[in-house]
Amino acid sequence: MYEARNLPPPGAVAGELAIAPDSPAPTIRVCRYDPDHLTETTEEGALTAESLAPTGGEVVWIDVHGLGDEARLRELARALTIPELALADVVNAPQRSKVDVLPEHLFVLAHQAWRESDGKLGTGQVSLLLGDGYVVSLHDGRSDCFEAVRQRLRNPRSRTTKRGADYLLYALVDTLIDLYFPVLEIFADEIDTLQDEIFADAKTEHQERIFSLRRDLLSLRRGIWPLRELAGALVRDDSDQLDEITEQHLRDCFDHAALLTEMVDSQRDLVAGLNDAYLAAVSNRMNEVMKVLTIIATVFIPLSFVASVFGMNFERDGRPWNMPELALPYGYILFWALCLGVVGVMLWLFRKNRWF
Amino acid sequence: MYEARNLPPPGAVAGELAIAPDSPAPTIRVCRYDPDHLTETTEEGALTAESLAPTGGEVVWIDVHGLGDEARLRELARALTIPELALADVVNAPQRSKVDVLPEHLFVLAHQAWRESDGKLGTGQVSLLLGDGYVVSLHDGRSDCFEAVRQRLRNPRSRTTKRGADYLLYALVDTLIDLYFPVLEIFADEIDTLQDEIFADAKTEHQERIFSLRRDLLSLRRGIWPLRELAGALVRDDSDQLDEITEQHLRDCFDHAALLTEMVDSQRDLVAGLNDAYLAAVSNRMNEVMKVLTIIATVFIPLSFVASVFGMNFERDGRPWNMPELALPYGYILFWALCLGVVGVMLWLFRKNRWF
Amino acid sequence: MYEARNLPPPGAVAGELAIAPDSPAPTIRVCRYDPDHLTETTEEGALTAESLAPTGGEVVWIDVHGLGDEARLRELARALTIPELALADVVNAPQRSKVDVLPEHLFVLAHQAWRESDGKLGTGQVSLLLGDGYVVSLHDGRSDCFEAVRQRLRNPRSRTTKRGADYLLYALVDTLIDLYFPVLEIFADEIDTLQDEIFADAKTEHQERIFSLRRDLLSLRRGIWPLRELAGALVRDDSDQLDEITEQHLRDCFDHAALLTEMVDSQRDLVAGLNDAYLAAVSNRMNEVMKVLTIIATVFIPLSFVASVFGMNFERDGRPWNMPELALPYGYILFWALCLGVVGVMLWLFRKNRWF
Amino acid sequence: MYEARNLPPPGAVAGELAIAPDSPAPTIRVCRYDPDHLTETTEEGALTAESLAPTGGEVVWIDVHGLGDEARLRELARALTIPELALADVVNAPQRSKVDVLPEHLFVLAHQAWRESDGKLGTGQVSLLLGDGYVVSLHDGRSDCFEAVRQRLRNPRSRTTKRGADYLLYALVDTLIDLYFPVLEIFADEIDTLQDEIFADAKTEHQERIFSLRRDLLSLRRGIWPLRELAGALVRDDSDQLDEITEQHLRDCFDHAALLTEMVDSQRDLVAGLNDAYLAAVSNRMNEVMKVLTIIATVFIPLSFVASVFGMNFERDGRPWNMPELALPYGYILFWALCLGVVGVMLWLFRKNRWF
Amino acid sequence: MYEARNLPPPGAVAGELAIAPDSPAPTIRVCRYDPDHLTETTEEGALTAESLAPTGGEVVWIDVHGLGDEARLRELARALTIPELALADVVNAPQRSKVDVLPEHLFVLAHQAWRESDGKLGTGQVSLLLGDGYVVSLHDGRSDCFEAVRQRLRNPRSRTTKRGADYLLYALVDTLIDLYFPVLEIFADEIDTLQDEIFADAKTEHQERIFSLRRDLLSLRRGIWPLRELAGALVRDDSDQLDEITEQHLRDCFDHAALLTEMVDSQRDLVAGLNDAYLAAVSNRMNEVMKVLTIIATVFIPLSFVASVFGMNFERDGRPWNMPELALPYGYILFWALCLGVVGVMLWLFRKNRWF
Repeated sequence: MYEARNLPPPGAVAGELAIAPDSPAPTIRVCRYDPDHLTETTEEGALTAESLAPTGGEVVWIDVHGLGDEARLRELARALTIPELALADVVNAPQRSKVDVLPEHLFVLAHQAWRESDGKLGTGQVSLLLGDGYVVSLHDGRSDCFEAVRQRLRNPRSRTTKRGADYLLYALVDTLIDLYFPVLEIFADEIDTLQDEIFADAKTEHQERIFSLRRDLLSLRRGIWPLRELAGALVRDDSDQLDEITEQHLRDCFDHAALLTEMVDSQRDLVAGLNDAYLAAVSNRMNEVMKVLTIIATVFIPLSFVASVFGMNFERDGRPWNMPELALPYGYILFWALCLGVVGVMLWLFRKNRWF
Repeated sequence: MYEARNLPPPGAVAGELAIAPDSPAPTIRVCRYDPDHLTETTEEGALTAESLAPTGGEVVWIDVHGLGDEARLRELARALTIPELALADVVNAPQRSKVDVLPEHLFVLAHQAWRESDGKLGTGQVSLLLGDGYVVSLHDGRSDCFEAVRQRLRNPRSRTTKRGADYLLYALVDTLIDLYFPVLEIFADEIDTLQDEIFADAKTEHQERIFSLRRDLLSLRRGIWPLRELAGALVRDDSDQLDEITEQHLRDCFDHAALLTEMVDSQRDLVAGLNDAYLAAVSNRMNEVMKVLTIIATVFIPLSFVASVFGMNFERDGRPWNMPELALPYGYILFWALCLGVVGVMLWLFRKNRWF
Repeated sequence: MYEARNLPPPGAVAGELAIAPDSPAPTIRVCRYDPDHLTETTEEGALTAESLAPTGGEVVWIDVHGLGDEARLRELARALTIPELALADVVNAPQRSKVDVLPEHLFVLAHQAWRESDGKLGTGQVSLLLGDGYVVSLHDGRSDCFEAVRQRLRNPRSRTTKRGADYLLYALVDTLIDLYFPVLEIFADEIDTLQDEIFADAKTEHQERIFSLRRDLLSLRRGIWPLRELAGALVRDDSDQLDEITEQHLRDCFDHAALLTEMVDSQRDLVAGLNDAYLAAVSNRMNEVMKVLTIIATVFIPLSFVASVFGMNFERDGRPWNMPELALPYGYILFWALCLGVVGVMLWLFRKNRWF
Repeated sequence: MYEARNLPPPGAVAGELAIAPDSPAPTIRVCRYDPDHLTETTEEGALTAESLAPTGGEVVWIDVHGLGDEARLRELARALTIPELALADVVNAPQRSKVDVLPEHLFVLAHQAWRESDGKLGTGQVSLLLGDGYVVSLHDGRSDCFEAVRQRLRNPRSRTTKRGADYLLYALVDTLIDLYFPVLEIFADEIDTLQDEIFADAKTEHQERIFSLRRDLLSLRRGIWPLRELAGALVRDDSDQLDEITEQHLRDCFDHAALLTEMVDSQRDLVAGLNDAYLAAVSNRMNEVMKVLTIIATVFIPLSFVASVFGMNFERDGRPWNMPELALPYGYILFWALCLGVVGVMLWLFRKNRWF
Repeated sequence: MYEARNLPPPGAVAGELAIAPDSPAPTIRVCRYDPDHLTETTEEGALTAESLAPTGGEVVWIDVHGLGDEARLRELARALTIPELALADVVNAPQRSKVDVLPEHLFVLAHQAWRESDGKLGTGQVSLLLGDGYVVSLHDGRSDCFEAVRQRLRNPRSRTTKRGADYLLYALVDTLIDLYFPVLEIFADEIDTLQDEIFADAKTEHQERIFSLRRDLLSLRRGIWPLRELAGALVRDDSDQLDEITEQHLRDCFDHAALLTEMVDSQRDLVAGLNDAYLAAVSNRMNEVMKVLTIIATVFIPLSFVASVFGMNFERDGRPWNMPELALPYGYILFWALCLGVVGVMLWLFRKNRWF
């Protein structure tokens, strides 16, 4: 998220589109419904105001997957009178999440998050435009975030089909925000696993996983954080595009974003705690290693000295003061007794200092 | 708290309930009182507006334990015209603490905290709805937080029975907030114990306890923090549901929440300090270990060298310069004198550098 | 400060008093003055509105030491029409510092700090109520903070006796706040001492003193911090209880509280710096220890090896390649020359790497 | 950025210019255009209001490179009635980024950033003044940030030439802000590289690169941060110098500044994480070193002791208790068996404790 | 700065002066000027309203050095009707920086900073009072901060003499704030020096210099920080004491204070980075020491073991399995070959692990 991917070069005039080279060509799925009927088509022909307009109380949902064809996108924008700057914000991802009131649209720019199959965090920008009787959703097609909404529309008892386009906007925003919760739960699980592993046995790879968690949470946070302020933006917006119920539902959504931010902040705090715990574990480990070395060395170095002493070659013939102990009948036994005594005292001292 | 337990799946429509699988079926205790009488019953029959409504100046407290039966909860909501979104907030815990003014209710969503018998921190969401002459309290039944209020109502001299439903709401909120104080005192005790233990003898388990404290305080803080803002929410609320005295009492409550937040923040700061102290203690310990090793090694390594020297086999016959000291009559005595000298000098140096 | 001492149990109704078991019974000193006269008495009889009321332009200062008798306190509250909630705030310490405008009083709740004779930080809650012609001050009697004000009143040239009760309120608040400065100076001295000691020779006890400083500063900060906001509270208060001069003086007081907060924050920052310095000192110390060990070991371990070599028992008779150096006439001299050479090279290397 | 370069000495009167000694003399490029024509000249003669004024719907862009000639700058200021204080802000870099509404100009003071050829971060102050029909841009000429805009103007199909001077102002600000994105991408790459290198093999130089990143990000942040607030400043500005479309475009610009700040903050957070990772890597490395030492020492020190024992010279003639094992026919074999046994047990223990 | 130097004792009444015992007696320099004339005198006689008042369009600057004489200061205050509380703020340093609108004066309380000759940071409080046609500046005389302004007034072409007293106030504030820039530049130089030194060779003294920088920057920050808010205070002030140009100039001043705060904050951040770098350098150093020890020990400990083995005294007569290698004709050569082999393998391993 926000890893400056396809921004136009500096000096580009506003409204210029910087199409990402790997972005697929747009697939435009059009879904028309009223309380009784639902038709889903994939629009492949010319895009005109007429072909896309809702007819008679119908709601039209135009879901665009892939942003890889400038001509097609401009055609869509012309048909729906989407302003040039808004289209640039849609394509030149990443932008900051925001709610804008355009002359004929309510423009919600948000981000979705998902876990890739390899466990990595995927993020993408999703743009929603609420017009008169229709909603346009645009994203780069890497992850289909709105399948759940589509399922729901197909359900004949769904309430969504009984309400207007503004309620569809709400359902889409709500889905986007709700999709963060399972992602956060995976993070929570990973933090728990890391916690158990680090306290059991801290390894170098944990440091990498901590750093990667840190990076992902930072990325998530920046995607969610601006959404907190959106409730306020909606309140100040006096446009008539939202009826009161939808507005209330949307505010509820952005309250969830506030909850999400707090959850992410908590997780960031926990990850910082894990980092501390990791460092403490490494220190503790080194402490253990040093203790083993010290115990072995402090026990055997003096003993080795004693053994070396009795290996000295002082001449003893006629020199009674030179190493008389070598001549003792039980000198060797005494030597071992001395060794055991030293070991015993050492171990007692270590035990007393709680070294093991 | 806030460990995303029973949220509906992404794409769910607002108002959908995500009942936690282990949530018990609701027990609905109804308590009716006026200044002179008090009746406590457990409602097991049909829930209708009539059966629950207060009659003649009476106050009704409907206390719901357990949220495990969607049909029953919807029946209750219908009887009391609780809006669908509010019911969803009640069930789909955890939500952020808040005060909402609903068409016919004042809705307070808060969290309680308690210590489980195994010393762990338990947290749960508690919802309170103030209607016309009645208060509904709902929680998942894991901890009965309102027993103290029930006792008080039974006391014939209690002032609570002499006031209206809004005063009951206050008494419940007040109890919820006051329940945090003993929890915080347990934390304060644990911090004191940890402090003493760490300064006496830092162990690996302390790191785990510090991390767990950090986690619990983080959790507590997020439960209490939004309550600070509630006083403001009440002021902006111009509904007539609260008389002035209750409003003043409620503000007093939320002032206590501010105090709680400050106490939690202080404790978090102290826990951070404990972490520093733990790391310093580990470093100090390693320092001690290294000193022991260094003292032993620096004393005995040179001595061992000397002993090894006198164990060398240089031929001495006719080579007067080869190890003449071995032939000294008191060479061995001199050797020991040298050893004692080296030891003495070393110890004096260590003492001078304050190593022990 | 704020170590939840005598709060009522959860579920208690507002207004209930939780008298601390060790709180002494109240001593009520009444001090009446006008510009010309001053009478100081200790009120031991019944407390009635008449007995306490100021007569004819007089100002009455009712100074209550000790909060250990609920009946007596309630008698006082009744006599002066102090609301129940305010009395509860007075007794159920600790509360958050605040200024409240009550129907007939201006209520200032603040905290004092002092150094106990054993050097520990003592803190206590002080409540001030400004009524019509009188001021009530209440605290738990552990430290008599207002002796200086009493002295001043006795001084016939004092300006305080020439002004109204509101000016007395100011004088009391001012004294409370000024009492923080000497406490902070003691902290500043302790930080300086710690700094000198840690940079000279970091010891384990310093860690404890750092932690204790951290705890005390945290405690102080929470006592002073809310006072910053009180100036604003006074401005919004349109009651006529304060004349303009007093209001200006009080604002000056709360400006001092802002200065205090900044001083405490600076000291907290310095204590954090001391903690870093302590950890660095411990690391440096370990570094020194390791260097000593390494110098000794790297010098003597190779020498010991050489000595061991010349102690080997290879058979040399008829095997001219086995240890011919043992037969050299000056082999031993050469050995020592080799040793000195190795030592010299080592020391030169260490010196070059600036190890000593 | 902000490394106090050429500020006037203290006590200087406002409006005094502190020309940097190495600042080149100004080159004044004048670019006049209307939708159909474009003329670019370098103004070397006298600067008068007449020579610079736009004629007939024309827009004039006066681009000043180099600020090294006070007389010339004052001449320009006089010709365009630029206030003295504004000119001082232009020259006495660095100033804080800001938008000021002057009597006849809108004054935007911003900073540009670029990467020098040696990889270092270059920053410079850029001042923009929007007057009636003209824009003046001034910078010290170290990096030509507006070449892209010049190219665009030369393009006959460019929309910029079809709009007024205020749109040119927007295009310049937009370019300045967009120039930060490639700089940030270079930082992002460097952070990725550092991450890989540190996790692979932490070296001392990484610490220096981390510190340098920290310094550069700090510098960038202070250049961008004030720009966030500029959108608000424009809204409060009721001057008629900006038409609505330009204002909207400028707000879009400053939204990008908000995004930039968030990106910089994220990068700062990641750099802090890298620092932690570096320290952890150093600790881990030391751990590895200690383990090797400990394994070698704990294996060989006991063995050396045993070998020393069998090298002792206890007299064995007629003293059967003195070292009888030396006389065993397979004593030496047993010795090696013992050694192998000790090594085996040690290695098994190390393996069990997962030391390698 | 703010090291509570000469505050009155607690309980002192407002307006009491706490003269610092080492404060010199006031020197009162009076400087009168109009666009054409300038007279500088030192006032030693009685201070009366008449003797100090400006006459006929003149501006009077009364510069008071030294605050060591209460009577003299009170005389001055009486002559100029300076309120008692303001005089107390002037003398009882340190106070928080502020702008106050007094009945007849505009009161600016700020702090100056300078470097003492021994390199230490000096700070002092400076008070400025703007009255009708005159400015009073008061400071304790330890550093003469306004010499530059005096020089400027003497310059016949100076613009300052052509404007009113409010412009003089601006010139003084501007000088005070500008004096921070050279101080900050010295800090910046010291940070650069420290950076170079620490990355080259971290020493214990660096920790002390880091701590001292931290302390000084903290002190500076608290002196500058409140000045940021002063621009706002001036805007809210509707007094007629400042004409519009001066007000604009003063705002420019306080903008510089904002820039200063940001510079100080950056420097604090860099100092924190230096602390990290220092700790990392200490760790690295220890790592190097440990590596040397480990290389030496792991090379020689096994070799010593082998040498010890060949020094054992197993009986070999008739026991062919006891140490047959001692009888090999080239055993000693083989021994050295073994030693060299071990050393080679070890060094190859160390090289492979990039230990040197």
